[in-house]
Amino acid sequence: MRMVDLIEKKRDGGELSKEEIDFIIQGYTKGTIPDYQMSAFAMAVFFRDMTADERANLTMAMVNSGETIDLSAIEGIKVDKHSTGGVGDTTTLVLAPLVAALDIPVAKMSGRGLGHTGGTIDKLESIKGFNVEVTKDKFIDLVNRDKIAVIGQTGNLTPADKKLYALRDVTGTVNSIPLIASSIMSKKIAAGADAIVLDVKTGSGAFMKTEEDAYKLAHTMVSIGNSVGRKTIAVISDMSQPLGFAVGNAIEVKEAIDTLKGVGPKDLTELVLTLGSHMVCLAGKAESEEEARKKLLEVIKSGKAIEKLKLFIKNQGGDASVVDNPDKLPQANYKIDVPAKKSGFVSEIVADEIGTAAMLLGAGRATKEDTIDLAVGIMLRKKVGDKIKKGEPLVTLHSNREEVEEVISKIYNNIIISDKAETPKLIHGVVVK
Amino acid sequence: MRMVDLIEKKRDGGELSKEEIDFIIQGYTKGTIPDYQMSAFAMAVFFRDMTADERANLTMAMVNSGETIDLSAIEGIKVDKHSTGGVGDTTTLVLAPLVAALDIPVAKMSGRGLGHTGGTIDKLESIKGFNVEVTKDKFIDLVNRDKIAVIGQTGNLTPADKKLYALRDVTGTVNSIPLIASSIMSKKIAAGADAIVLDVKTGSGAFMKTEEDAYKLAHTMVSIGNSVGRKTIAVISDMSQPLGFAVGNAIEVKEAIDTLKGVGPKDLTELVLTLGSHMVCLAGKAESEEEARKKLLEVIKSGKAIEKLKLFIKNQGGDASVVDNPDKLPQANYKIDVPAKKSGFVSEIVADEIGTAAMLLGAGRATKEDTIDLAVGIMLRKKVGDKIKKGEPLVTLHSNREEVEEVISKIYNNIIISDKAETPKLIHGVVVK
Repeated sequence: MRMVDLIEKKRDGGELSKEEIDFIIQGYTKGTIPDYQMSAFAMAVFFRDMTADERANLTMAMVNSGETIDLSAIEGIKVDKHSTGGVGDTTTLVLAPLVAALDIPVAKMSGRGLGHTGGTIDKLESIKGFNVEVTKDKFIDLVNRDKIAVIGQTGNLTPADKKLYALRDVTGTVNSIPLIASSIMSKKIAAGADAIVLDVKTGSGAFMKTEEDAYKLAHTMVSIGNSVGRKTIAVISDMSQPLGFAVGNAIEVKEAIDTLKGVGPKDLTELVLTLGSHMVCLAGKAESEEEARKKLLEVIKSGKAIEKLKLFIKNQGGDASVVDNPDKLPQANYKIDVPAKKSGFVSEIVADEIGTAAMLLGAGRATKEDTIDLAVGIMLRKKVGDKIKKGEPLVTLHSNREEVEEVISKIYNNIIISDKAETPKLIHGVVVK
Repeated sequence: MRMVDLIEKKRDGGELSKEEIDFIIQGYTKGTIPDYQMSAFAMAVFFRDMTADERANLTMAMVNSGETIDLSAIEGIKVDKHSTGGVGDTTTLVLAPLVAALDIPVAKMSGRGLGHTGGTIDKLESIKGFNVEVTKDKFIDLVNRDKIAVIGQTGNLTPADKKLYALRDVTGTVNSIPLIASSIMSKKIAAGADAIVLDVKTGSGAFMKTEEDAYKLAHTMVSIGNSVGRKTIAVISDMSQPLGFAVGNAIEVKEAIDTLKGVGPKDLTELVLTLGSHMVCLAGKAESEEEARKKLLEVIKSGKAIEKLKLFIKNQGGDASVVDNPDKLPQANYKIDVPAKKSGFVSEIVADEIGTAAMLLGAGRATKEDTIDLAVGIMLRKKVGDKIKKGEPLVTLHSNREEVEEVISKIYNNIIISDKAETPKLIHGVVVK
C-alpha cells in the first residue's frame, strides 16, 4: 500500500477501507508517513468528507494508536460527558457531583487546555489543596466507593490524534466535520467511556457558528459512537452568549456551588439538568428523561448533590469548607463595575469577545507555558433579553490590577443595548442518531 | 502574513494577490514554509483551481525563485518549443535545424529526464562526439553565428518548481491544471524564451488523456504566457499512438534525419510543419502560417535543413557523417520482426504500453541513476488505420539481447488488429488565447 495512492483515492471521492485507514494512522503514528502526505490527505478529506464507515474506522484507528484506559474495575455504566467548548462553561463541575449523587460512577479524566479560561482541572485547583495527581488505583477505589473522582490526563492516549491535531492547526484543515468528530470521539473512547453525552455548542462563542454545522457535527459524533458500541447522545445548546454569569476560574467554581445548591443561574441550571438527565438515562438509572430530571432535582433539593461535592473535594485533598464559605476561594483585589451607558434591553453579548476580555485580565492561557490567575474574571450582571437602566452595572470585573481600560472598551464594544431584545433559546435540540 | 491563513483563503475559494503568492513561493524556496503546509495548499489548489491572475503570478514567482538565462546577447526573437511529452516524439530534433535554416535563432536548453526513451540530449549523444557541455559564451556565439545550439540544463533555474514538483509527486497533487501549467511555463520563461510554441498531446499515451483536459491545459498555458509578455501558441496533437515509427534513441535520430531530408513519416512531418510554421510566424519571419509552411518545405527541398543539421552536429563536436550514413549510429545486435497473428487493419497502438516495451529493452530510464542503451528500441511497421496481412511484421524490435518474450507479449497485447480502422486525426486544434 502506498500513501500517495490513498490520498488520490480520497481526493477522487473514493471510500477507504478499514485496512487503508489503519495503514494511514499506524504509519503516521510511527512516522513512516510524513506530515506532508498527511496534510494533503487531511485537505482531501476537508473537500471530500468521509462516509459513516470511514469516520468510525478513523476514530477506532486513533483509539488504537496508543494506550487506552481500562475502567472495567469500576462497577456500573461509565457515562462521560464532553462539551465542544464555549465561554463560561461550568457544566462539568456541576454535573460530576450531581450525577454521582444518584450513584452513577463518574470517573473523569480532565485537562488544563488552552483558552479564555482554564480547564476543569485549573478550576478545581482554585480550591486549596485539591489534587488531581492521584494514582490509577486510588482513582478507581474512589469511584467505586464514592462514585466520583477526577484525574489529570495520564498515559499516551490517542497519539495519532495529538499529532494530527497539531498538523491540522497549521494546514487549514481544522474545520472538517469528520476530522473534528473522530478527534473528540477517539479521546472519549480511549478514556474508557461506555456511553457519552455530548454538549455541542452553537453560536458566536462556539466552534460551530451555525445551527446547521452544530447539527452536522452532532449527528456525525452520535453515529460514530453508536457504530463502535458506545451509546451516544448529543444536546445542541446555545453559545451565542456566555453560559451562566461567571467567566473565570474561582468565580465559575462559586457559580457551580450555587447551582448545586439550587440557586445557580437559570441557563446553567437548565443545561445541567438536560445533559444530566441524558446521563442518568444512559447509566440505566431512569426510564425516561422526565424521571431522570425529577431525580436530579431531588438530590439538589435534599442536599445530597452539594454533600457529594464536599466529599469529592475532601477525597482529593481539597478544603471542602469552600462549599459553605465560597469567600475562601481566591479573591481578586479589585471588583470594578462597568456601568451601562444607556437604558434599554441587552440584545447581544458576543461570547468569544467576553472570553478574550477575561483572558486579558489573566483568566486564560494563550500558550501552554502561560500561568493563569485563578481569582480574576468577568461577572456578567445581565444576560441577553434583560432590561437595564443607564448607570446600572453591565458587568463586574474581578481584576488584580487597576488598569483595565482595554478590557472595559472590549466590554462596551461587545455588549449591545437595544430598544428590544429576546432571551435566546438555550436548548436547540437533542440528537440521538 | 501567515501561510495557514493563505491556505484557508484558497481552501475557501478566495483569490490570492501577487504579494501573497510571492510570500508562499519565496518562503517555500527558503524553507520557512514547510512541505506540510505546501502540500495542503497544493491540494486546496487542486480543488479550487486558480484565477488567470493567480496562475500568471505563480508562474512568475517560480521564475523569480532562482536564476534565469539571459539570451539578450542573441539577435532576433528567441522562440522555444515545449511538448507535454509522449512516445516516440522526435519533433525537437527535426524542428531545431529546420527552423534555424530560416535564420531563426534556436538556443535550446534540454534535459535527460525520465521516461520511455531518453531526452533530447540522450538522443543527440547517440551521435559520436556530440557534446552539450559547452560554455554559455560559446553557446551564445554559436547561435549568433549559425542560429543553432543545444546546451544541457545549467544553473539553478526555478528551484521552487523543482521542490514543488517533487512534493506534488508524493502528495496526490500532480494532476492540477494550474500547477502543471505554471510548472511548464516557469521553466520555459526562466530559460529565456521570448515566445513559446506548445505541443499539447492528447490520447492514451499523453498526460492529458482527454481532448477536453488537453484544451484546458493549453488555454491555461497560452493565457499565462501572453499575460506575462511571452507570445504563446499551443497545438493540440494526437498521442493515441506513438508519433512516427521509431521509439528509441538512435532510431529516433535516424527518423529525424529522414524527416529533414523530406522522407520521414507522414505524421511526424505534418506535426513538425505545423509547430514549425507557428514558430516561424512568432519569430516574425512569415506573415501567415501558409507562407511559413511554404518556407519550411523549401528548406527541406533545397537541402538547407539537412545542411543545418550537419553544421549543428559539427559545431558541437559530433560526427556529422552520420547524416549521410545513418548506419554509423549505434546499432542493436538483434533485429527481431514480430509478425501479425491475423490479417485486418491496425485499430489501436496503445502508446504508453509501447513506450514501456521500449523501456524493457533498455531505451529509457526509470530512475535518474539508470543508464540507457542508445541502440535499442521499437520500430513500428504499421500505424493505426494501416492494412496488415497475417505474418507481415507488426513491429521490429531493436534489441541487444535475444530474450524478448516479455516485450513481444506486450506488443501483442497492445497492438490491436480489427476488421476496420481509421487513421486518427493528428492535429486536433490550435489555441491562441
